[in-house]
Amino acid sequence: MASLSLKEDERIDDLEFKGLKIIQKKEGFCFGIDSVLLSDFAKDIRDNSNVIDLGTGTGILGILLCAKTKLKKIVGVEVQDDIADMAERSIMLNKLEDKFNIVNNNIINLKDSYNSGSFDVVITNPPYKKYNTGLTNINKYKLISRHEIEGKLEDFIRISSYLLKDKGSIYMVHRPDRLVDIISLLRQYKLEPKNMKFVQPKINSSANMVLIKAVKNAKPFLRIEKNLIIYNESGKYTDEILKIYNKNKKINNKK
Amino acid sequence: MASLSLKEDERIDDLEFKGLKIIQKKEGFCFGIDSVLLSDFAKDIRDNSNVIDLGTGTGILGILLCAKTKLKKIVGVEVQDDIADMAERSIMLNKLEDKFNIVNNNIINLKDSYNSGSFDVVITNPPYKKYNTGLTNINKYKLISRHEIEGKLEDFIRISSYLLKDKGSIYMVHRPDRLVDIISLLRQYKLEPKNMKFVQPKINSSANMVLIKAVKNAKPFLRIEKNLIIYNESGKYTDEILKIYNKNKKINNKK
Repeated sequence: MASLSLKEDERIDDLEFKGLKIIQKKEGFCFGIDSVLLSDFAKDIRDNSNVIDLGTGTGILGILLCAKTKLKKIVGVEVQDDIADMAERSIMLNKLEDKFNIVNNNIINLKDSYNSGSFDVVITNPPYKKYNTGLTNINKYKLISRHEIEGKLEDFIRISSYLLKDKGSIYMVHRPDRLVDIISLLRQYKLEPKNMKFVQPKINSSANMVLIKAVKNAKPFLRIEKNLIIYNESGKYTDEILKIYNKNKKINNKK
Repeated sequence: MASLSLKEDERIDDLEFKGLKIIQKKEGFCFGIDSVLLSDFAKDIRDNSNVIDLGTGTGILGILLCAKTKLKKIVGVEVQDDIADMAERSIMLNKLEDKFNIVNNNIINLKDSYNSGSFDVVITNPPYKKYNTGLTNINKYKLISRHEIEGKLEDFIRISSYLLKDKGSIYMVHRPDRLVDIISLLRQYKLEPKNMKFVQPKINSSANMVLIKAVKNAKPFLRIEKNLIIYNESGKYTDEILKIYNKNKKINNKK
């Protein structure tokens, strides 16, 4: 299968979950624990949902969601040509072509492709960092995947609100230091935060990741879930993380 | 001293901290752990600060802050006549008249009394509940202290922004389920949330209280502090709480 050939700078990783595999850049941006935790946080997605993943990267979130939920269709939007191409090959590798389609576009152009209210669910692991912060020593793929170059947080939230049906859900992972931006923008665009879960590396550390579910046009009432702790005191994964990874044992902690 | 006489429905409680005492209603709203935790969270108030406590109640926050910090002056604003009177008598009881003054007024009228930027610090433990929620089986004092009858969250935040100097700080304790309202309103009124600390009753429960520090006209960057846990697995206070209460051993958990 010519279309499934690997490029020189790519490798195939085994997700060790239902035989799933993923193509990643050897030196580029590899999926991290945040994608795995987000796919777990979003596993209450209703059966037969139409889902869109904004900034899909290698397609990891979509591939995990196809296996963990009974979603109907998922579109993965990726601005970087060769990353989008890689995601398409991962979809073929996992025989998910019937469910999972890649759109190689900038999220800010999606109004041209979709009517308002076309999706039940948005899921997104957007770039975490503002454009002008910490740009040293990083290659092009990592740069675009991590920094707000092609789409700013407000772009992701504005287009999510446009794409979602009334009472549709958005699931997002981000950094706690951006929480005020996230919450203010979600509400501004009628996406009411309903569930929030902080993730902390160890029992005695503060949170360095936050998972948020918001619902379009919902009433205000936020539930803060119990914090998720990644490592126990002896430096091993906590039971809660092991439980999440039981279904997905390959751990790649590079983000 | 006639002015220090107790009414029939009142009692004096010993704070067991530097000899401080407080007058409270026997059946009314008694100060809770939230006030103690807020006074601890706010102990980084700079020396010689001019402080205002919005919704001061019995005056507990101001009394604790006079002992824990080197603030210059503190004004406590309380809308309920007889609660304000009670706070004034607690101030006399603790000989804090030179530092701590009570203003018997509704916070929404404070623009008539103070110029914009009159204070370095606002501290507030505002009513937690919306007016139309859970009003059954509660006396008048508890009703006004707990519910947004005389001042809504937006009123507290709007007037705080007015009262604070540029780069002045507001410290607030509230419920996590209102966090989206709190964060959105703080930002709307140019009070940028900079520190947030969730409080959870036990290690395995989710947060039921949140402490927030915001700074007027500050740049966005939120620090989430490690969660504070109140009880350990055997149902006793955690070391962290004992440390806070070491200086303040009397615990009254009624809020």
